[in-house]
Amino acid sequence: MSGAADIQPLRFEHGALHVLDQRALPGEERWIACDTPEQVADCIRTLAVRGAPAIGVAAAYGLVLADDREAAGALLRATRPTAVNLGWAIDRSLAADDPLATAHELHAQQERADRRLAELGAERFREGDRALTHCNTGPLATAGYGTGVGVLRAAWERGCLASVWVDETRPLLQGSRLTAWELDRAGIPHRVIADSSAGSLMARGLVDRVVVGADRIAANGDVANKIGTYPLAVLADRHGVPFYVAAPVSTIDPATAKGAHIPIEERDPAEVAGWAEAFNPAFDVTPAELVSAIFTEAGVLEPPFDEAIRGVAAG
Amino acid sequence: MSGAADIQPLRFEHGALHVLDQRALPGEERWIACDTPEQVADCIRTLAVRGAPAIGVAAAYGLVLADDREAAGALLRATRPTAVNLGWAIDRSLAADDPLATAHELHAQQERADRRLAELGAERFREGDRALTHCNTGPLATAGYGTGVGVLRAAWERGCLASVWVDETRPLLQGSRLTAWELDRAGIPHRVIADSSAGSLMARGLVDRVVVGADRIAANGDVANKIGTYPLAVLADRHGVPFYVAAPVSTIDPATAKGAHIPIEERDPAEVAGWAEAFNPAFDVTPAELVSAIFTEAGVLEPPFDEAIRGVAAG
Repeated sequence: MSGAADIQPLRFEHGALHVLDQRALPGEERWIACDTPEQVADCIRTLAVRGAPAIGVAAAYGLVLADDREAAGALLRATRPTAVNLGWAIDRSLAADDPLATAHELHAQQERADRRLAELGAERFREGDRALTHCNTGPLATAGYGTGVGVLRAAWERGCLASVWVDETRPLLQGSRLTAWELDRAGIPHRVIADSSAGSLMARGLVDRVVVGADRIAANGDVANKIGTYPLAVLADRHGVPFYVAAPVSTIDPATAKGAHIPIEERDPAEVAGWAEAFNPAFDVTPAELVSAIFTEAGVLEPPFDEAIRGVAAG
Repeated sequence: MSGAADIQPLRFEHGALHVLDQRALPGEERWIACDTPEQVADCIRTLAVRGAPAIGVAAAYGLVLADDREAAGALLRATRPTAVNLGWAIDRSLAADDPLATAHELHAQQERADRRLAELGAERFREGDRALTHCNTGPLATAGYGTGVGVLRAAWERGCLASVWVDETRPLLQGSRLTAWELDRAGIPHRVIADSSAGSLMARGLVDRVVVGADRIAANGDVANKIGTYPLAVLADRHGVPFYVAAPVSTIDPATAKGAHIPIEERDPAEVAGWAEAFNPAFDVTPAELVSAIFTEAGVLEPPFDEAIRGVAAG
């Protein structure tokens, strides 16, 4: 078991949710104790906790702290619009009699889903593979084993991964700050690159597989994920590099027909440039035609995705 | 005449070359006085002055300050490997009887070339066009009117430019620090984006033209330019957006058959991430097949570029 398994960004102890403040990493491991759903909502909105699966788990714990659970659910649901796991977890908590047991179960379920999809994804790797990943999809992002990074960890443990190129992931550097930190703890060789370097690495033949996570997957297989995912998919397609998405079934939104209908969060332009006018969309949409496979805990989905997704959503 | 015309990053006065320190912009306008070619070489190596045409002009002034011009030429030539204008300017200075007159002439020639290619490029723009650019190709980069930014300025003055998307250009932020500053002084509406946002802007139909500069153009039309140029060209191709390169003829290197032979400078990984291992290629190569046109002072080159380049190089 690698050291990254010890990373746990959410702990519910003594009636409070303790959140590892990801904004301070990798420099400092600072914890925020939340006694109210408002504090949890703040942690989600300000990215102290981020990653589609992790914010779902955090919201479930947040509802444990609420007096008025309906109001708290609405507050938490409004924190971030793109990830669908958030609403999914809130719906499950609100429907439950014992919210704490439900939160613990969602948390454990995420860990199991990560392990399973990571094993399934790792089967696609071959000895010596050099992978490229974007943003952060490890334990910090899922409160489990990780989705994209989970696949990389499982591939590494099988001896089927040589090294990882880590997109730094502007503007907030989740790649260079968080993914590099996780891979370092897992002992997996890696190097950080500027996001705009990925294309020339592929052109030089230095990338064998791309693995990313997802914030929402539409019914047709279009994938909303961190801004910068779409250009990677276009470049991977041009260079014949498989482009994989790793996500739990809770990330799939059968109610959204296609990517164009997914709301794309726009964040503060100051995250990009404090001294000039800026535009800061937090996510982009990768059309299903550019996705080679989607790794879920219910199986590996392959094109045509609409059919595969109907099967999983019905299951 | 717009205010950006007042930007002049190189001044030769009282027997010294005064270099506007571009590392301190936009926060501070700090000048470095160089009395020796060694100081000029330091300014080029550390990016106090950068941009392929501007470092050529700076090197020519640097040779004015030399006792041993051959040794100084070798020193200056070795500062940065990718841009071909550097060696071109040094060769011209070393062959001249009056190095100061030659430096002034190269400087004036750059200004004339910029004006001419900017006018030719602007003819391709239509009212309402929204352009996207990468890195910095304005007066700071050329010591003249600008190449890529020159085209944008000329298009703006003709009423054929609505606004500019400015790639921030990681790792050193030449876009958000320098290009945004130049466009601001020229009164041209612009917004900075993370480099990885360009693809989704094109997918949303928000980009009509892409304009970049070049550090070296091979005989077949392959273009070496700031890392991140190649993915823009691939994305522009996918979305049917014209992809223009603006560069003086001195950027064309007929002696280099194709892009794969252009040396790509690798800079300090700490520019990307100080706390993790990183890989930092400063340039990438865009294959000629993805270039719509090359704007030079000798005319607009169009595919097939090998033929067009032979014509210009012979001229």
